[in-house]
Amino acid sequence: MSHSLFETHQKTLEAAVEAIHKRDFWSPYPEVPSGRIYGEHAKKEGWAAFEARRNSTFSIGQPAGAGTVGDEKSPFGLELNIRYPSPDLGAMISAASDAAAKWRDAGVAARTGVCLEALDRLNKRSFEIAFAVMQTTGQAFMMAFQAGGPHAQDRGLEAVAYAYEEMTRHPTVATWTKRVSKTDSVTLEKRFRLVPRGVAAVVGCSTFPTWNSYPGLFASLVTGNAVIVKPHPRAVLPLAMTVEIVRDVLSDQGFDPDLVTLAVDTLDKPITGDLVTHPQIGIVDYTGGTEYGNWIEQNAKQAIVFTEKAGVNCVVFDSVSDLKAVTGNLAFSLGLYSGQMCTAPQNIFIPKSGIKSGDAVITFDDAAAAIVKALNWLLGEPARAVEILGAIQNERTLERIESVGTSGAEVLRASESVAHEQFPDACVRTPVVLKTTADRKDLFMREMFGPIAYIIATESTDHSLELTVEAARAHGAISCGLYSTDAGVLDRGVDVLTAAGVPVSCNLTGQVYVNQNAAFSDFHVTGANPAGNATFCDAAFVASRFRLVESRVQV
Amino acid sequence: MSHSLFETHQKTLEAAVEAIHKRDFWSPYPEVPSGRIYGEHAKKEGWAAFEARRNSTFSIGQPAGAGTVGDEKSPFGLELNIRYPSPDLGAMISAASDAAAKWRDAGVAARTGVCLEALDRLNKRSFEIAFAVMQTTGQAFMMAFQAGGPHAQDRGLEAVAYAYEEMTRHPTVATWTKRVSKTDSVTLEKRFRLVPRGVAAVVGCSTFPTWNSYPGLFASLVTGNAVIVKPHPRAVLPLAMTVEIVRDVLSDQGFDPDLVTLAVDTLDKPITGDLVTHPQIGIVDYTGGTEYGNWIEQNAKQAIVFTEKAGVNCVVFDSVSDLKAVTGNLAFSLGLYSGQMCTAPQNIFIPKSGIKSGDAVITFDDAAAAIVKALNWLLGEPARAVEILGAIQNERTLERIESVGTSGAEVLRASESVAHEQFPDACVRTPVVLKTTADRKDLFMREMFGPIAYIIATESTDHSLELTVEAARAHGAISCGLYSTDAGVLDRGVDVLTAAGVPVSCNLTGQVYVNQNAAFSDFHVTGANPAGNATFCDAAFVASRFRLVESRVQV
Repeated sequence: MSHSLFETHQKTLEAAVEAIHKRDFWSPYPEVPSGRIYGEHAKKEGWAAFEARRNSTFSIGQPAGAGTVGDEKSPFGLELNIRYPSPDLGAMISAASDAAAKWRDAGVAARTGVCLEALDRLNKRSFEIAFAVMQTTGQAFMMAFQAGGPHAQDRGLEAVAYAYEEMTRHPTVATWTKRVSKTDSVTLEKRFRLVPRGVAAVVGCSTFPTWNSYPGLFASLVTGNAVIVKPHPRAVLPLAMTVEIVRDVLSDQGFDPDLVTLAVDTLDKPITGDLVTHPQIGIVDYTGGTEYGNWIEQNAKQAIVFTEKAGVNCVVFDSVSDLKAVTGNLAFSLGLYSGQMCTAPQNIFIPKSGIKSGDAVITFDDAAAAIVKALNWLLGEPARAVEILGAIQNERTLERIESVGTSGAEVLRASESVAHEQFPDACVRTPVVLKTTADRKDLFMREMFGPIAYIIATESTDHSLELTVEAARAHGAISCGLYSTDAGVLDRGVDVLTAAGVPVSCNLTGQVYVNQNAAFSDFHVTGANPAGNATFCDAAFVASRFRLVESRVQV
Repeated sequence: MSHSLFETHQKTLEAAVEAIHKRDFWSPYPEVPSGRIYGEHAKKEGWAAFEARRNSTFSIGQPAGAGTVGDEKSPFGLELNIRYPSPDLGAMISAASDAAAKWRDAGVAARTGVCLEALDRLNKRSFEIAFAVMQTTGQAFMMAFQAGGPHAQDRGLEAVAYAYEEMTRHPTVATWTKRVSKTDSVTLEKRFRLVPRGVAAVVGCSTFPTWNSYPGLFASLVTGNAVIVKPHPRAVLPLAMTVEIVRDVLSDQGFDPDLVTLAVDTLDKPITGDLVTHPQIGIVDYTGGTEYGNWIEQNAKQAIVFTEKAGVNCVVFDSVSDLKAVTGNLAFSLGLYSGQMCTAPQNIFIPKSGIKSGDAVITFDDAAAAIVKALNWLLGEPARAVEILGAIQNERTLERIESVGTSGAEVLRASESVAHEQFPDACVRTPVVLKTTADRKDLFMREMFGPIAYIIATESTDHSLELTVEAARAHGAISCGLYSTDAGVLDRGVDVLTAAGVPVSCNLTGQVYVNQNAAFSDFHVTGANPAGNATFCDAAFVASRFRLVESRVQV
């Protein structure tokens, strides 16, 4: 087996391994959608490639059942009408198993080379993938490009780097010599083989189909497993393109492409339950809603299961030095992709007595008004607003936005439709902001996915922290913002929040946001509260995807 | 918090970390029960200390219910009559949780120092623990000393070394700077806190109470968790002494000793189910029978579960260069602790056409006879035999030995009682050896725990390998012996067996045995077949016992 792909990408791998230890900013995949980087016509060609997928059948060449399936709807109102091969899970698992021995035996360098090459090719096609992500998830273009392209590739590379380190941590051969008497010793030559689990399933979500799926996909693949990718029925295309690209690299290198296949289903006829509980599925990676994630954790007993679910994310206001800078930052976090991120804030806790700003006290109502004002400013221009908000991905989110106003909380800012010049049928909504009190846990102590924010009056900052911890322990939390100019409050807050498994972002202003997590530096989801049992990325995410099995010979 | 214990033992830790990467023989704990190493009177004092435990109540000072419990019976016939505190799981879990924050906040070095000191103190009391292991498990003295003392301490240290490496793999503080425009950059200072899972449960077994429990105990403890140790009702004393010693070190260092407590139950009133499914138990380590291990894997859904269960271990005879050396080695493996090891061989596959030895062919019957002869020679002298066999730990094992002769297989060698000079009431039995054919899977394709060996006539070596793989995939396997003078057969055998998750020992003769696994070099249980889901020891065994939770501050 040639290691030429490994050598081609070795420097990237080494830099990635260094980055996960250093945890400074690093990325080999430029996040700026610039023609100077990706090619003068890259954007146009990407759109054309995406366009060519519409109203057509996406053929993959993998084992498939009769007919085709497809159920995607663009939140921007574009007709997609893409058909995919009908899945035949038995045939796919059987083909995956047949292909696996050669993949396993190819060794760490060959497998790592294939994965790095696939990531590189994905990067080169970032525009095409960005349009696919945009038109299935409702993300605005910039986010679709960055999160769906380079940042997703970063997360995939990060998983490869962790897995590579783990796979090369032990020697493959060792000599063991033990003295058994004054004159005698015994010697064994030991070999340690890497044995993968078998066939892995990656279950994608509707909002970040690539970013959330690449870690599991590449972690399982590079450690020697075959992978069946099961996209969300509403966000298939970005993962179909991914599978196609990975299969191309496998074929080019002489491997059976059926190592990686695509299992598409529809909302009416879901197949995820059958897939993740199949006796031959040894690994499951799931990103998506909490309820179904919990079901998988409880029922996919034959597999090791990695989940990234959802939670109730909070922001705690204690004191600020520059309220405008704070609310400007928070407004962007609330508006970004209409709160359809698992890291988006939902509950904003402010003491009813107000917050300090230098020597002054800002009343609760003034602080709340400042948040609303910042949102109004941010989203005042429709052309700018749609590039932040994107579109609403899911009808249930839309219903939630519409029903929340009559739930008993005071509406400080109603959600509004925004016209999209380029896509007149796009479903764009601004955030609804509600005001309530800490005793109305029936309203805010649950996940309200989408552009819905509660500003909640509490007794004190300690009370706000208590409620944040309660939400995290009961429902999970993936992010948390804490604003204080008091070092003691910051310390205490970080103490109690991190103990509850909540990552905390303190005093964010400017161009870095509570809902952003950067590969090679930020651990995404902690695994330490109900929001998920795994993190992107650590050794626990990769180490159990393979086992070392020893043979020893007396010499 | 003082790190003086860390400094005291730092060299041992560093050598252990080096050893797990090198995988040559290494141990800081001498395995020879010599007065020159452990003190001139160590054996006598150890016996006296053990004697003082008999007919007394073992007081621990931990939260406890009313009354005492105790159900131990010495397989050597010695009256034990030791009473332990009655467990109050709610109070123990509550005390453990209260004690945990200080332990977590003490940091990696302080916790590692405590664990290393505890292992050192355990080592110094190896004789006392050896007698406790011997008189509860039925192991002969030498094995009780080695496996119950230094080798168990090795396994504990190995887990600490893996966990230490994992805990120190990432920086605790990092600066992240990202350029956001031509002139601007944002900088975050990030801190990564280690957050343990909470309270761990370690469920011990009746045959190797210390060796099998120390990895989980020390891995959970050093990563910041509290630990409740639940010994097998028949092998409490070695773990009670262990808990006492660990608690002493914790107290000495100013920690709440209730971080580590002992939960003793009886066969009549087991508490393991309640313990491992308790909502506050976040980690379960289990060693023992397959059936109950499977139950825990399926039912302790709130925890991460590590199991080391049992399997059907096989030996494949293809060809030999020195039959006497081979059968001498195999006889010892069959006799050692009367086959009551999870690594002991059970099925010996020999082609019905015989095996090659140089140019000659040894018939099936001659090969089988040689195994019987080697056993007869090994166990011919009662005084020597009892030091190899030990005593039968479990009445069900005794029943199995007695019933197996009438199952339809031909008895080549009947099990016999052996008189024990020192312990006249000891229950000592030699192995029963049976002959059967490959079609009698009803007999041999299941675990027959204890001194029971089947010699099975197969069609060919490939057939023998097929059956070994079948046994491993269906019932698990923890060891396998392969004898061949043909390099091609060895390669093929190692290929198919390791792919089935079975560690293979090739051509063992002399003083190294298929049932032995050395810490820092051999991975014990692969986690790649039904014999268990974890291994002693790798990153997967330690990495998910804690999580990293981040806080980041804009600077």
